[in-house]
Amino acid sequence: MDYRIEKDTMGEVKVPAHVYWGAQTQRSIENFKIAQDINRMPKEIIAAFAYLKKAAALANLELGVLPKEKSDLIGQSCDEILAGKLDDQFPLVVWQTGSGTQSNMNVNEVVAYRAHVITGGSLTDKDKVLHPNDDVNKSQSSNDTFPTAMHIAAYKMLLEVTIPGIEKLRDTLAAKSKEFMHVVKIGRTHFMDATPLTLGQEFSGYVSQLNHGLKAIKNTLEHLTELALGGTAVGTGINTPKGYSEVVAKKIAELTGFPFVTAENKFEALAAHDAIVEAHGALKTVAVSLMKIANDVRMLSSGPRSGIGEIFIPDNEPGSSIMPGKVNPTQCEALTMIAAQVLGNDVTINIGGANGHFELNVFKPVMIFNFLHSARLIGEGCISFNDKCAAGIEPLHENIKKHVDNSLMLVTALNTKIGYYKAAEIAQTAHKEGTTLKEMAVKLGYLTPTEFDEWVIPAKMVGDI
Amino acid sequence: MDYRIEKDTMGEVKVPAHVYWGAQTQRSIENFKIAQDINRMPKEIIAAFAYLKKAAALANLELGVLPKEKSDLIGQSCDEILAGKLDDQFPLVVWQTGSGTQSNMNVNEVVAYRAHVITGGSLTDKDKVLHPNDDVNKSQSSNDTFPTAMHIAAYKMLLEVTIPGIEKLRDTLAAKSKEFMHVVKIGRTHFMDATPLTLGQEFSGYVSQLNHGLKAIKNTLEHLTELALGGTAVGTGINTPKGYSEVVAKKIAELTGFPFVTAENKFEALAAHDAIVEAHGALKTVAVSLMKIANDVRMLSSGPRSGIGEIFIPDNEPGSSIMPGKVNPTQCEALTMIAAQVLGNDVTINIGGANGHFELNVFKPVMIFNFLHSARLIGEGCISFNDKCAAGIEPLHENIKKHVDNSLMLVTALNTKIGYYKAAEIAQTAHKEGTTLKEMAVKLGYLTPTEFDEWVIPAKMVGDI
Amino acid sequence: MDYRIEKDTMGEVKVPAHVYWGAQTQRSIENFKIAQDINRMPKEIIAAFAYLKKAAALANLELGVLPKEKSDLIGQSCDEILAGKLDDQFPLVVWQTGSGTQSNMNVNEVVAYRAHVITGGSLTDKDKVLHPNDDVNKSQSSNDTFPTAMHIAAYKMLLEVTIPGIEKLRDTLAAKSKEFMHVVKIGRTHFMDATPLTLGQEFSGYVSQLNHGLKAIKNTLEHLTELALGGTAVGTGINTPKGYSEVVAKKIAELTGFPFVTAENKFEALAAHDAIVEAHGALKTVAVSLMKIANDVRMLSSGPRSGIGEIFIPDNEPGSSIMPGKVNPTQCEALTMIAAQVLGNDVTINIGGANGHFELNVFKPVMIFNFLHSARLIGEGCISFNDKCAAGIEPLHENIKKHVDNSLMLVTALNTKIGYYKAAEIAQTAHKEGTTLKEMAVKLGYLTPTEFDEWVIPAKMVGDI
Amino acid sequence: MDYRIEKDTMGEVKVPAHVYWGAQTQRSIENFKIAQDINRMPKEIIAAFAYLKKAAALANLELGVLPKEKSDLIGQSCDEILAGKLDDQFPLVVWQTGSGTQSNMNVNEVVAYRAHVITGGSLTDKDKVLHPNDDVNKSQSSNDTFPTAMHIAAYKMLLEVTIPGIEKLRDTLAAKSKEFMHVVKIGRTHFMDATPLTLGQEFSGYVSQLNHGLKAIKNTLEHLTELALGGTAVGTGINTPKGYSEVVAKKIAELTGFPFVTAENKFEALAAHDAIVEAHGALKTVAVSLMKIANDVRMLSSGPRSGIGEIFIPDNEPGSSIMPGKVNPTQCEALTMIAAQVLGNDVTINIGGANGHFELNVFKPVMIFNFLHSARLIGEGCISFNDKCAAGIEPLHENIKKHVDNSLMLVTALNTKIGYYKAAEIAQTAHKEGTTLKEMAVKLGYLTPTEFDEWVIPAKMVGDI
Repeated sequence: MDYRIEKDTMGEVKVPAHVYWGAQTQRSIENFKIAQDINRMPKEIIAAFAYLKKAAALANLELGVLPKEKSDLIGQSCDEILAGKLDDQFPLVVWQTGSGTQSNMNVNEVVAYRAHVITGGSLTDKDKVLHPNDDVNKSQSSNDTFPTAMHIAAYKMLLEVTIPGIEKLRDTLAAKSKEFMHVVKIGRTHFMDATPLTLGQEFSGYVSQLNHGLKAIKNTLEHLTELALGGTAVGTGINTPKGYSEVVAKKIAELTGFPFVTAENKFEALAAHDAIVEAHGALKTVAVSLMKIANDVRMLSSGPRSGIGEIFIPDNEPGSSIMPGKVNPTQCEALTMIAAQVLGNDVTINIGGANGHFELNVFKPVMIFNFLHSARLIGEGCISFNDKCAAGIEPLHENIKKHVDNSLMLVTALNTKIGYYKAAEIAQTAHKEGTTLKEMAVKLGYLTPTEFDEWVIPAKMVGDI
Repeated sequence: MDYRIEKDTMGEVKVPAHVYWGAQTQRSIENFKIAQDINRMPKEIIAAFAYLKKAAALANLELGVLPKEKSDLIGQSCDEILAGKLDDQFPLVVWQTGSGTQSNMNVNEVVAYRAHVITGGSLTDKDKVLHPNDDVNKSQSSNDTFPTAMHIAAYKMLLEVTIPGIEKLRDTLAAKSKEFMHVVKIGRTHFMDATPLTLGQEFSGYVSQLNHGLKAIKNTLEHLTELALGGTAVGTGINTPKGYSEVVAKKIAELTGFPFVTAENKFEALAAHDAIVEAHGALKTVAVSLMKIANDVRMLSSGPRSGIGEIFIPDNEPGSSIMPGKVNPTQCEALTMIAAQVLGNDVTINIGGANGHFELNVFKPVMIFNFLHSARLIGEGCISFNDKCAAGIEPLHENIKKHVDNSLMLVTALNTKIGYYKAAEIAQTAHKEGTTLKEMAVKLGYLTPTEFDEWVIPAKMVGDI
Repeated sequence: MDYRIEKDTMGEVKVPAHVYWGAQTQRSIENFKIAQDINRMPKEIIAAFAYLKKAAALANLELGVLPKEKSDLIGQSCDEILAGKLDDQFPLVVWQTGSGTQSNMNVNEVVAYRAHVITGGSLTDKDKVLHPNDDVNKSQSSNDTFPTAMHIAAYKMLLEVTIPGIEKLRDTLAAKSKEFMHVVKIGRTHFMDATPLTLGQEFSGYVSQLNHGLKAIKNTLEHLTELALGGTAVGTGINTPKGYSEVVAKKIAELTGFPFVTAENKFEALAAHDAIVEAHGALKTVAVSLMKIANDVRMLSSGPRSGIGEIFIPDNEPGSSIMPGKVNPTQCEALTMIAAQVLGNDVTINIGGANGHFELNVFKPVMIFNFLHSARLIGEGCISFNDKCAAGIEPLHENIKKHVDNSLMLVTALNTKIGYYKAAEIAQTAHKEGTTLKEMAVKLGYLTPTEFDEWVIPAKMVGDI
Repeated sequence: MDYRIEKDTMGEVKVPAHVYWGAQTQRSIENFKIAQDINRMPKEIIAAFAYLKKAAALANLELGVLPKEKSDLIGQSCDEILAGKLDDQFPLVVWQTGSGTQSNMNVNEVVAYRAHVITGGSLTDKDKVLHPNDDVNKSQSSNDTFPTAMHIAAYKMLLEVTIPGIEKLRDTLAAKSKEFMHVVKIGRTHFMDATPLTLGQEFSGYVSQLNHGLKAIKNTLEHLTELALGGTAVGTGINTPKGYSEVVAKKIAELTGFPFVTAENKFEALAAHDAIVEAHGALKTVAVSLMKIANDVRMLSSGPRSGIGEIFIPDNEPGSSIMPGKVNPTQCEALTMIAAQVLGNDVTINIGGANGHFELNVFKPVMIFNFLHSARLIGEGCISFNDKCAAGIEPLHENIKKHVDNSLMLVTALNTKIGYYKAAEIAQTAHKEGTTLKEMAVKLGYLTPTEFDEWVIPAKMVGDI
């Protein structure tokens, strides 16, 4: 491969001739040969950096510490990053310095050197139009840019992927709930037959879970809107012009269209990432909900002949390489696997969040890596589950009716008529002798057949609908 | 031991002669011999049951399905429970049925039989003034009472123990932050010397963390105010009088003084405990904050001669059984152990929450056991840490000054004067040759001594205070 | 309350007049008011301390640094602790110093002062026959005694409670597996009908899981036999006589009957508790197995009329406070809740284990608290599940036969006769049209009725038994 | 894009014209649009499939159910996969069916269709030389192939990446331990000054941790050698020739060079993945060790002027984008982030492992995805940490000496001379008055200067070296 020589404060480094990155990026590639093919710094973080570098340049311009020419050039490079034109220029992995310094420098270098090329310069020129540290990183530190990128990327992912995904599934389930509201079916508690409810009521529980989950996520957004930028090295804002924090946050808000503000306390913003911990606490709550919903769906659709079989879910693919004709609840499986992943990611994030020390938390990359993973999996997982499974759910009326009609727990309707103990005697004896409830109720002399028919009506046991 | 015979729908059971509980409680004692000496159902759950049983009796009275005499008797027994007079009547453990049915029946039996004795009856009377199921449990099921008790106990613990504990510590740290606001000290990032800040600024980060944590907890309270009561067996409200859900929630709100309301969706309220998962997500966020704070405090106070030694914390006890005169940051240790416990409890709660099926989640006892444990540990842990440690923190000015004066990272102030690269050269060479920054800056010819003294002033590097 | 005055190196402390503990125990009670009613230091740790204090006294005697009289007295007090006579003398909680120093001193004080009373002295005597530090703690530090107590208590619990509990359940399941070996039933994969197996084969999987789990636990025992004692303050063994480590480990082995040895590396033994982390890794594996087994049992027994209903499990108690005659798989629920607890405890232990620093891990109490909790819950949970559930499992032949006969997946037997694609066509069409496999196979012209009867025989599809 | 039409039992599917995969792979691409750019099925699983497909073909040949020509062709395709020639033919993600059926079919299709092309056929030929199900998947099911691939991939990664990585680091630390064995330094417990030890002793603890960790991993290997292959659909081995399980395991052992055997119990092997759970339990133990080691290294190297500064670690890159000349312990940070990731992955694996039902665990892909991630991160992380950090560690003698000489805890040596209480008085008073120990010991009249010099010698307080 062709190389060129780049320099940083530690000396010379050989860099592939045609890449836009420089010495520090190259050092990181060589110093951290860990999972380089599978654990790149998430592209959402790179995009977030592009927003913030551009915003910083604009703020620096506005506050008089950066000339317009340089500010424009920085903006131009950043726009190319956002347009996806430089995707192959960010080779670093998550497993680097815990402040994300190397990814910050990767962006600084690419922005600077790309700008130099845009203006007609060559990558081998000794002096370039922009300096990675003094210009692109001006009024910044990795310590405040990386957490700012974390919040931008997290917020954006939640708003654009996670929440819409959950909402789409919620809407489908709400429509199904309405549609199935009068389909009376047996209830099950402890996996055992219980009193009836309607299929629509059952689904309304899922809708309510997701609504609460959405609210939980939204409750955590405000903390995420607080940006560290302006704190620089340790939170004091050293080397920033007066008013910079507020101006740069405003620029980021404008560029992204999201209501970002400057964090009231920059010391927390660098040294702790409780906003990430808290917001992921909401994501794990949603994961818990999705596990419940997907489990119910696959168990309700189980069979086709020796399971519960009360709902139909779409057949999307042959289910088995050996059992011909088998169809499986594969979307449920993907979603529950996602839930398991999110619950594990939560622990990683907690451990990372708990181990900041003094002025800096240095688990930043692993925290945002896991956060974005979860947020994306939930969003895309909900869409997949929605489109390929939930949207096609239909009741299997025959089985539903058979189950509710057979149920011994309809006896519960008699509590208020003959008391819990006599009702229990009817159910237990019917179970033992294999009779219907009605037969046994009459046989034991506690009710007349007419009373039974009048009092024990599944459709009247489901409350107001 | 003396016994009496009690009966339930499954037959006769021998019960200790003088206890107020009956057959079903006794069955549970015998069926679940698991950690009986250490894992009793939390007393807060028993108290919550007392509130809700009394509230249910009042609602049943108001709605005309229970006579005043019975309602009053139920209330009287419940008041005795709340007054702590019957503490030894609740022997059951967490490891029972996952719906908490046995604890519900324990309460039903004790309320009924105690009432019978209050009215002059004997525990061996065949007929008693109240029936555990038909009267005390009227318009209820374990499936809606237990989750209601979970929310009452959780909310109450958060409001009365957790939040006040955190607030007390927050207030102390805020006062310390203000007091130490002008104590300039070295900053540390990556455990390495960095630019200065003040001790008060450092502490302000802790305050901000706790303020955000309090907000996070409060964000989750609304979900906890929703009560399942009125859903009965599967969420449909079978065997409840019209309007019962709203009335009983209002009674609970009145009795407890907390803003409880009836859950809009009872199906979720029985089948999922996302409110517990979500609220514990806030608690784990606070645990993460406390781990950070306690770690900082113990590292800042480390020494006395070979550590960092920038703050003093109170000497509360001899620290070592072998090293004479040793004093240790024991409150920090208790608090970090608590944080570890809470982060583990979170996983238990997540697994429990994810594994509800159909109309019921049957991990109720383990979920609330862990929730209350965490909520209490955080609350009481904060008080202990506050009273015995945080309140006594003082700066050790001598060490603080020595550290900040020695720091090579003061060089950062020169970035805007001579650029990042020359500044780096000064710091690196001073480090290598063991000189002061000033000596090296002058020696390298980048600054005059006067410029150095004018530009490199720690107290001016900490921003606006 | 009556008090007496006790002294330690920090001064005077008021102690309840009649307790055997002294100043340092009392300081801890007052300094750590955290969950004092529910989180006492586990009694197994106190017992382990009694073993090790006695062993240390014997070793000190043998090595000539403690007179026989004192050694005997220490042994006498320790024997009383082991006999349970002093249970109320250990009031401290888990949430104390992370080295467990205060519990070590609690034991030192009780041993010393009880010995003084045994010899006719009074608790108010200024000089006592034994000094807590200089005699009872001789050749020891909290830093090596507490981890030694951790290993003794953990090993003992595993050997006496955990392993026997798992083995008992394993034996029952093995007997059931043998008994049910020829009961042909439908298989289920993805909750969907699959090819047949026998109920005994299904249970053999559980047996295999538990056998592997037992092996996993046993693999971790060796690390637990290594004792820290002899390392004293930081692992160097300061203030111990020559040969002490080996002698004291031998004494502990003799007193406990377990094969304890001195740890080869004392620095690890104080600074890390990887043996606890590793052994709990085996416990969490067993928890995972138990979750699987208990879930299967409750789903296989689900119904009675609208579930799977292929096995009967014992009816232990009325299952519902509102649904008369309901019976629930309560032992399964207790066991799965235990599994959830163990999986959470694992995270707490991991976090504790990961956060030792320099010469000492100071998450000792929380680590052993969670370890013993898990080990006991698994052991006692298995016994409870075994005695009240597994031992009574019986096949429900009628349902089993109905399910297997109906299954469309019997078609798999035809793969090797007519190929996967034609077999799939038969199954899919039979499903669509609601016919039997045989009807459809013949109708589609792929087989004669005779061929079908010859080739598709569930009992021949289960392999060699 | 150009397409061709492929068919499976559900009908026709449009597939990109030139890919080797078929209908079922394509369906999965379209049905699971979840994180497709970042969560591909690990390449190690694809390689493991290549081994097992070839082995199955050889076993089928040997047992007379597959002609030599077909067996050879299958082998040829598999060899191309193993040689990395078909890497772009496996586009599926982790988030698919929980049995991994779709990846199994992906391999079946690619092997079959590539073989067809090898023999001169065209991808658009209706009949191909090999059938994905009837030939390539012969005597197999996804249900036994995927878990077999899991064990092959996991075992191979542990042996080839994880264990060598840990061993390399262990060897370096062992060499450092030996080299530093006589460097006397202060010990630290609770972050506080304690009695001395040598730097080599301190490092010996790390070596011991890693040795125990290696042993822990090795203890779990045997379970991983057990292969599910031969169990087919539900563990009964339906559609396999007699003796197949043993033969195919032997072929896999030959092809991979690892001691794989057929699992004694196939029902466990399909329905549970406790071997993965157990082995990851060992990995998390190592993660815990690495966290301890990396934390110690970064704290011991902290400074350069206001930290502990007792060891030097290599300067690998500029540490800060704003603070010139700053160097950070970046390898420690990568390693601790890895530890956090592994501890989270453990929870995901536990949840997956606990949720198998009946005859199949359907969390297979997420379990192995997380397992391989952890195993690789630990292995590669250890190498990186070793090469770029541990190998360059050197003592900073000046600081080490200063710290040990100043220490008040040297007083511990006096316990056996003057008793714990007087020793404590010396240390406490020296601390209060800021004197040396010796000055205070003499001033208090407990020792002569000569006695002090004779008794208090750091180098004699570190035990036998």
